[in-house]
Amino acid sequence: MNLILLHDDDFQSDSLVTLTGRRLQHVLTVHRAEVNDCLRVGRIDGLLGNGRVLELTPDRLQLEVQLDQPPPPVLPLTLLLALPRPKMLKRILQAVTSLGVKQIYLINSYRVEKSFWGSPLLQPEKLQEQLLLGLEQARDTILPQVGLKPLFKPFVEDELPEIAAQSSAYVAHPAADLPCPSGVSGPTTLAIGPEGGFIPYEVEKLQEQGFIPVSLGERILRVETAVPVLLSKLSGG
Amino acid sequence: MNLILLHDDDFQSDSLVTLTGRRLQHVLTVHRAEVNDCLRVGRIDGLLGNGRVLELTPDRLQLEVQLDQPPPPVLPLTLLLALPRPKMLKRILQAVTSLGVKQIYLINSYRVEKSFWGSPLLQPEKLQEQLLLGLEQARDTILPQVGLKPLFKPFVEDELPEIAAQSSAYVAHPAADLPCPSGVSGPTTLAIGPEGGFIPYEVEKLQEQGFIPVSLGERILRVETAVPVLLSKLSGG
Repeated sequence: MNLILLHDDDFQSDSLVTLTGRRLQHVLTVHRAEVNDCLRVGRIDGLLGNGRVLELTPDRLQLEVQLDQPPPPVLPLTLLLALPRPKMLKRILQAVTSLGVKQIYLINSYRVEKSFWGSPLLQPEKLQEQLLLGLEQARDTILPQVGLKPLFKPFVEDELPEIAAQSSAYVAHPAADLPCPSGVSGPTTLAIGPEGGFIPYEVEKLQEQGFIPVSLGERILRVETAVPVLLSKLSGG
Repeated sequence: MNLILLHDDDFQSDSLVTLTGRRLQHVLTVHRAEVNDCLRVGRIDGLLGNGRVLELTPDRLQLEVQLDQPPPPVLPLTLLLALPRPKMLKRILQAVTSLGVKQIYLINSYRVEKSFWGSPLLQPEKLQEQLLLGLEQARDTILPQVGLKPLFKPFVEDELPEIAAQSSAYVAHPAADLPCPSGVSGPTTLAIGPEGGFIPYEVEKLQEQGFIPVSLGERILRVETAVPVLLSKLSGG
């Protein structure tokens, strides 16, 4: 927890917040803060700043906060990700959130196991837990939006044109001839398949929407390794 | 398992191998291969090629192999990694192996928990299991070398000069002013600290050896996210 995230409910006034639960425990056991210590805080979907400890007991933490710094720049990339298995989904959501992605669509693919769509992890509040962990890690406050799209064809045909409009669109595909470009400027949309990849039909459907298949070379990477590599390469620099 | 790795012991002759255990199970249950099917195989530290199924029973798999393709290019980067917690170490070893790193040193740092050095995962055969998983994933055959360096100062002062000689050397340090360069040509040495980072003394010791502190920007990433991003950026382009 490199940042204590503040929810609207935590505020008694513009500058006074009270925390309990996980964040209180963290300040007690990891920060081991004392009265008058300053902690780094950020308001969800708002500014970053400092919180001075006014009171710290085993039951509650009271902070006087001053919020005056903008969150870090966002990554102008929309990610379409074939739904991974729940354990990996947790890690990937945290990772892409920490990297600054703000638009995530979890989509279906032939090689996505049907049971994954029934995972309790896909409940909004469970998804949000992972996103919050990613924000805390990267000292960011802007919650990503996550869309669940369990039907591939209607999503790609009816919704994707608007989502990917005005962006450079790529689909990661190990069999592609074109290497993944680096340092793409402007908005980007990136589709990443499941372990084993999108099937040819799915790649074709994405190509019909203007997606260019690109590869990371001979080496086949696990999705959780490919994701940070692809985001880093495309946002390049 | 995108590649079936063959050990020297598996060979009856230059072109005949017999497999049992995990690889047999994989061919039975995932590939569901039949006699005369061709499977992608590679000899550890040797060439890649095809293996034609001669016999497949619940007890053994016999393949006629033809090895005639080189493994993918290596990443000319030596990685110094502050020993992560065992669970994360597994994933990171698999990831960096799949990315083509061939020299890995697991080093100590003030923020590495002492208990990590006692993990059974650090036994040579357990480490090798993770490396083999990374090779199978990326269709590579060349086993990385892993060195364990539980004493920071003697390692940095006495061994590192030779290890990092003739290479561009960087230490990932969130507080650094210089952004991580991209597309470094030639051999590179990269030091990555533990969660929380190297302490200033450690960064100074690495700087004395010519390491340049570089940062990935405002966002603090988990080690397992930072590693693929840094490797991708440095080898970049």
